[in-house]
Amino acid sequence: MTRTFRIRTESPAQVVDISDRVAAVVAQSGRESGLCQVYVPHATAAIVINENADPAIGDDLIDALDRLVPQGVWRHDRIDSNGAAHVKAAILGPGETIPIRDGRLALGRWQAVMLVELDGPREREVHVTVLG
Amino acid sequence: MTRTFRIRTESPAQVVDISDRVAAVVAQSGRESGLCQVYVPHATAAIVINENADPAIGDDLIDALDRLVPQGVWRHDRIDSNGAAHVKAAILGPGETIPIRDGRLALGRWQAVMLVELDGPREREVHVTVLG
Amino acid sequence: MTRTFRIRTESPAQVVDISDRVAAVVAQSGRESGLCQVYVPHATAAIVINENADPAIGDDLIDALDRLVPQGVWRHDRIDSNGAAHVKAAILGPGETIPIRDGRLALGRWQAVMLVELDGPREREVHVTVLG
Repeated sequence: MTRTFRIRTESPAQVVDISDRVAAVVAQSGRESGLCQVYVPHATAAIVINENADPAIGDDLIDALDRLVPQGVWRHDRIDSNGAAHVKAAILGPGETIPIRDGRLALGRWQAVMLVELDGPREREVHVTVLG
Repeated sequence: MTRTFRIRTESPAQVVDISDRVAAVVAQSGRESGLCQVYVPHATAAIVINENADPAIGDDLIDALDRLVPQGVWRHDRIDSNGAAHVKAAILGPGETIPIRDGRLALGRWQAVMLVELDGPREREVHVTVLG
Repeated sequence: MTRTFRIRTESPAQVVDISDRVAAVVAQSGRESGLCQVYVPHATAAIVINENADPAIGDDLIDALDRLVPQGVWRHDRIDSNGAAHVKAAILGPGETIPIRDGRLALGRWQAVMLVELDGPREREVHVTVLG
């Protein structure tokens, strides 16, 4: 089963917890086991899985990426001034795959599925695919 | 087919070759082709694929991550002192997917599947899912 | 369906757009929906998804990786002098998975599938697996 939903981000860089939206697709699929893939069809956004119980972790990730890939020093900045966002998105990757067990996402207790906005604010799409 | 196994890590940061455990699940599945997904349900561990013929490569990876994401400078450290481990795990990701060909993992000659412990020692779970 | 093709890279570090080769496998599969996984069985190459409309983005990624993971300071260099390439490949990962919708790769307008050569020039293999 495949579903697409939209997320409107509100900042230049932001981590948005989309676990509930993804879990709803898995529930709707009725599938007891298999894989759930979450994918953004964008070149300046990414999907990561990590803790959101402390939302500071998302801010830490944004800060770490800014330190590792500074703004304004990239060839692509001459065209679009968002070269850093492209490099960060390429490193993080546009998708993550999560196992399905007992009809649910097998996320760990401290794991959430998060969209990483790297060149917002924008409206973003998320494709969810369930296979089993 | 889905299987889960456990790994006890022994250091704060460590790379553990789990290729044989993953390959055993693929053999047990009897599947000739498809995909094998390997996933840790943890926010301070990750799965990577690289060479283990020279185990120094795992140590190099741990060192590189320490240089890129230093300890002790993160918001989350005020709660749990393992902010660096969360950022590293988010960048590496909790899973990898490997093709199955001729009934076996299509790992390259220099590839091994490795669990990366970033906040150990701990007991970790690994979920393996085979689809085809 | 599974297919393998070969790419000859021409530089020590290079980003090669393989979107058309991957799309051809999806077309050949006849599958309307599902997942397409792209995988390199190598420990010094990787698969990323990002923009290629401006090819400078690939060069930016290569530069960023060189700044983050400098040459010549790794334990593995004593054996093979390509320690940096292994660390970069472990961070980027050997594969990416793309949804299939309406019989086609659901790549975004600014997304291309790219092989990242980190220790070339070499002949590289790419495994493509289509499931649905």
